[in-house]
Amino acid sequence: MIHGHGSDAYRYKENIVADFSSNVWYPGPPKELIDHLGEALQYIGSYPEPDSGRLQNALARFHHVPRDKVLVTNGSAEAIYLLARVLRKRASVILSPTFAEYEDASETENHKVRHIFRKDLFTETRTPHSLFWICNPNNPDGRAISPEDIKKLLIHNPSSVFIIDEAYGALCSEDFSSVHLLEKHDNLIILKSHTKAFTIPGIRLGYVLGPPKIIFQLRERLFPWNVNTLAISAGLYICHHHKRLAPDKDAIYREMKAFRKELRQNTSIGLRPTRTNYLLGELDGYTAGQLKDYLVKQHGILIRDASNFFGLNNRFVRLALQSPEHNRLLADAIGQFERAL
Amino acid sequence: MIHGHGSDAYRYKENIVADFSSNVWYPGPPKELIDHLGEALQYIGSYPEPDSGRLQNALARFHHVPRDKVLVTNGSAEAIYLLARVLRKRASVILSPTFAEYEDASETENHKVRHIFRKDLFTETRTPHSLFWICNPNNPDGRAISPEDIKKLLIHNPSSVFIIDEAYGALCSEDFSSVHLLEKHDNLIILKSHTKAFTIPGIRLGYVLGPPKIIFQLRERLFPWNVNTLAISAGLYICHHHKRLAPDKDAIYREMKAFRKELRQNTSIGLRPTRTNYLLGELDGYTAGQLKDYLVKQHGILIRDASNFFGLNNRFVRLALQSPEHNRLLADAIGQFERAL
Repeated sequence: MIHGHGSDAYRYKENIVADFSSNVWYPGPPKELIDHLGEALQYIGSYPEPDSGRLQNALARFHHVPRDKVLVTNGSAEAIYLLARVLRKRASVILSPTFAEYEDASETENHKVRHIFRKDLFTETRTPHSLFWICNPNNPDGRAISPEDIKKLLIHNPSSVFIIDEAYGALCSEDFSSVHLLEKHDNLIILKSHTKAFTIPGIRLGYVLGPPKIIFQLRERLFPWNVNTLAISAGLYICHHHKRLAPDKDAIYREMKAFRKELRQNTSIGLRPTRTNYLLGELDGYTAGQLKDYLVKQHGILIRDASNFFGLNNRFVRLALQSPEHNRLLADAIGQFERAL
Repeated sequence: MIHGHGSDAYRYKENIVADFSSNVWYPGPPKELIDHLGEALQYIGSYPEPDSGRLQNALARFHHVPRDKVLVTNGSAEAIYLLARVLRKRASVILSPTFAEYEDASETENHKVRHIFRKDLFTETRTPHSLFWICNPNNPDGRAISPEDIKKLLIHNPSSVFIIDEAYGALCSEDFSSVHLLEKHDNLIILKSHTKAFTIPGIRLGYVLGPPKIIFQLRERLFPWNVNTLAISAGLYICHHHKRLAPDKDAIYREMKAFRKELRQNTSIGLRPTRTNYLLGELDGYTAGQLKDYLVKQHGILIRDASNFFGLNNRFVRLALQSPEHNRLLADAIGQFERAL
């Protein structure tokens, strides 16, 4: 899907004051990371390592996995499309509503695609030889599945492969990562990204952790120099300074609580539970398109119309936490909109 | 091919004083471009446009072609692999020796691959429904084919598609570009890159110019955000300041003449004619591997062992123009090596 994602400010002529449409962590990239990349600009006159080898090694050490279980990609998007290609003989089963690229990538490779919903997760995963796409925590609703439940899925469906996208892992209130399951389960693939937690969507950096056999197949399809020098440099810097730079989970939890309170007090939006820095809201009496249009034109506020997520409709919006000040601005603006209805 | 290219300094522990192994233009990226990218770092907190739309428009205007004839890619390498995928039902014919990625991409997609040589260009292109890969000017030898000859090929082989890689076009002593042929020929695809002329291999930016039908097919296979914010920013900047930033072709010609003189005076290397900033050298009495090894270990000089180009053997090296001082250093070092044989 080229268009229809959040962060689509480029489509509007209005000056955007606050952007709730993108799930990235709002404080922006760490200042010291920007400074580091400024220094790294001196290296753009040389080719990056064709296979991002040094970063691959650093990530293997960081996650305590062997290096043949790691593949660095040009954002998670490249990983998703590559996986759909390499595993194209399987039927895709997508835990929905979720990130549209799983379906798009699967369809590009002519998979048979089926959507299942959270309530059917343990009954509907019985189809053998399938490829399951699970975003954990999930986009757009911030719900998460525990690693114990992931483990059950892996064990009960040994002929199927599970792709668990942990792009939001570092923004989740609890550590729900399944990385430790890689040691014993060769039907598990984990997608990782620094985009959301370190607010570097412009850099394009993702990686795959998975069984060596699949990593090898992915690598065979990859072209050289797929990740640029600055992305590699950002990845290495984050690996080495992860503890200091990672978002404060307590702060996310606290700020989300305050944000929900603002929204409850000022608007009629039905708020779904979430474990991350964004939430799904259900509108009553008006559409996401109407609200989005009003907010961007009257207040320069961008939100994510979530109606194009499979399983949702035009009553859903996704809102990502911003600064307390902007959060109040949004709640007020929606309140004004609702009162004028 | 992940390994086996030039610019492989990362494989050596020696400090590299001069790098003749990469074909990029030696003065390095323009200072003002680096400064511009330093400013652009403030935007990495937002997603790039998913389809590089603004850059696509700018390139269309720059080349005077409609925008549906332009696709921006993550370096030329992504374009090469995408083309091989989309045109996978054709047999690939590669004008050799040349850049290894045409063959690798074709083999990844199970094309039947055939190599032809320059002397057979007009007789061997008679196979219908083929996909011809031509690097113009060519890597590794810097030879070029005139647009008049390209036009003949297009007309005489209407059922075949010709991919002309003009990555070195801006470094060629004459303007041999075939872009103007796009208007009347829908079996022509041109690959472009800013990597070589503006010395930004670390940035990963390439693009394809071609018939809308093929551009559309390529776009359908592409994942969103394939080009990062800084690459898009560099591309826009180069489009807008191309005249001022492009390499001085007279300087390249003059410096190459001096470089050849140094090599002739100090070494026994047989020098092939070239129209670009690099040349192919044929060794007599020793191998490329021996010379490369000596130069890196004794002088910290990196050269390209060209023996892995199809059609060449272990007697060939590729040398890219560096500063006059470094050029002398290389000629002297090779002279020393030859005298000690």
